[in-house]
Amino acid sequence: MTSVKLFKTIAFIGFGLINSSLARVVKTKGLAEKIHAYSRSEATRAKIKKLNIVDNIYDNSAEAVKGADLVILGIPVGATRDTVSTFASSLSPGTIITDVGSVKQSVIDKLSSVLPENINFVPAHPIAGTEKSGPEAGFETLFEGHWCVITPTKNTDKEAIKKVTKIWESAGMQVAEMDAQYHDLVLAITSHIPHLVAYSIVGTVAELEDHLKTEVIKYAAGGFRDFTRIAGSDPVMWRDIFIDNKEAVLEMLGRFIEDLTALQKSIRWEDKEALESLFNKTRLIRKGVVALKQD
Amino acid sequence: MTSVKLFKTIAFIGFGLINSSLARVVKTKGLAEKIHAYSRSEATRAKIKKLNIVDNIYDNSAEAVKGADLVILGIPVGATRDTVSTFASSLSPGTIITDVGSVKQSVIDKLSSVLPENINFVPAHPIAGTEKSGPEAGFETLFEGHWCVITPTKNTDKEAIKKVTKIWESAGMQVAEMDAQYHDLVLAITSHIPHLVAYSIVGTVAELEDHLKTEVIKYAAGGFRDFTRIAGSDPVMWRDIFIDNKEAVLEMLGRFIEDLTALQKSIRWEDKEALESLFNKTRLIRKGVVALKQD
Repeated sequence: MTSVKLFKTIAFIGFGLINSSLARVVKTKGLAEKIHAYSRSEATRAKIKKLNIVDNIYDNSAEAVKGADLVILGIPVGATRDTVSTFASSLSPGTIITDVGSVKQSVIDKLSSVLPENINFVPAHPIAGTEKSGPEAGFETLFEGHWCVITPTKNTDKEAIKKVTKIWESAGMQVAEMDAQYHDLVLAITSHIPHLVAYSIVGTVAELEDHLKTEVIKYAAGGFRDFTRIAGSDPVMWRDIFIDNKEAVLEMLGRFIEDLTALQKSIRWEDKEALESLFNKTRLIRKGVVALKQD
Repeated sequence: MTSVKLFKTIAFIGFGLINSSLARVVKTKGLAEKIHAYSRSEATRAKIKKLNIVDNIYDNSAEAVKGADLVILGIPVGATRDTVSTFASSLSPGTIITDVGSVKQSVIDKLSSVLPENINFVPAHPIAGTEKSGPEAGFETLFEGHWCVITPTKNTDKEAIKKVTKIWESAGMQVAEMDAQYHDLVLAITSHIPHLVAYSIVGTVAELEDHLKTEVIKYAAGGFRDFTRIAGSDPVMWRDIFIDNKEAVLEMLGRFIEDLTALQKSIRWEDKEALESLFNKTRLIRKGVVALKQD
């Protein structure tokens, strides 16, 4: 007796950290009869082959999506329009397409201009990751205990949302729905600005005089070490996130620079009370974060 | 047969994360015949008692240092002068005093004005820690595999340096010597600015509209979550560090704000090349950090 699978064929477009991790879940839990993977890079396709997770590997995205009832985009958000344009006319009517991008409104806008009307797009963002990238960086438990945010529009098909929700729940995620623009604002603070700041401070170190740079790398402890980990994240993916979420990022960056400048002034004037009061306030936020989930 | 101990009596002045961790090492490895601990806070003294590490607990620092041949300051750097003034005249001639502060030049300046000439001060900074504080946060392996930087002046006694070096090596640290001001500049970048930035960004979140703040805490993932951990560090200790290392912190903060402003401009103008080139550069720094030591 064979059980009915959630999907017949899932086509993974792009096979980096997120898609390769999800493909492992799909294979282990038997969520699809067939798994297709597309990558434009020959080196990546060779790595996918070695992993032995997928049934068919493609160098042509239009071929990869043929016969698929679910297509999952796992590519830098800046590549969305061009990539989807290439295979849009090869999608079967009724196919569900979803994505895993860190920015949602721009992806919705891009896809609405290139997808046929009979395709169901479900914008999604599994909030999980590491600073590593590439198919070999993936692992099955990556998503466990984290949130996946789905940002439907008024046109998004309810049944399609349910099926995409099931995929992420099978991966161990809690799924929530949110307005796309609000998602982009929340993520600007929780993820995009922290990455931007980490990139910036590690960039400042990269510009230091050589002898000082050597000592900094040698004695990198707590703080800076954490920042280098964040600033080791995929360059193209993050370049696209900052540009695609430009409005929210610049808004939050503006607030941050204001606050940092005030802090600079407190230090210059040795305003002990202002410093201590800020640091007590941030400790409370930490308690809030820890109360919701252990590190 | 009893082996000769490294010290007769070690007096720990302050008993937070660092001193309580080191006291555990001293006890386990038998580095001293007697361990004294002083804390001005009754609550802390009660916690020390429960830990059962030290032989005598004092509410009077002058009593605590009597008969000690090594005194270890583990207090916020801003409290250095007042605390040491209180017990300076109770120190026996030849006693070694050392500290664990994150800022070195200001501590050297403060102590040179209050210590008698026959006392050997060895400025030291074990670069290890967590965001937790208090005697109960300590643990014996805290220092293992990390660096301890000693910043002697031209007057520092060579034998005293050797004995302090032995203590930290027994705790599992590698010990290096460095000029105090240079140490302060290196630490401004590797530790003080990252903490400042984390405090600032978490402070920005604390000021957000309530509904947005709730979502940010709920969906705190990678980046922001790491920042809240850093920004949960001891408020008084860090207030003092920023003020005592004001010059180096403001210098490095100035460079950082310049670079962040350039990055802001790159995003506004969607300068993909500038962004990608920066992010590739920071990835190289990460590789340098990882090559020296695994996370």
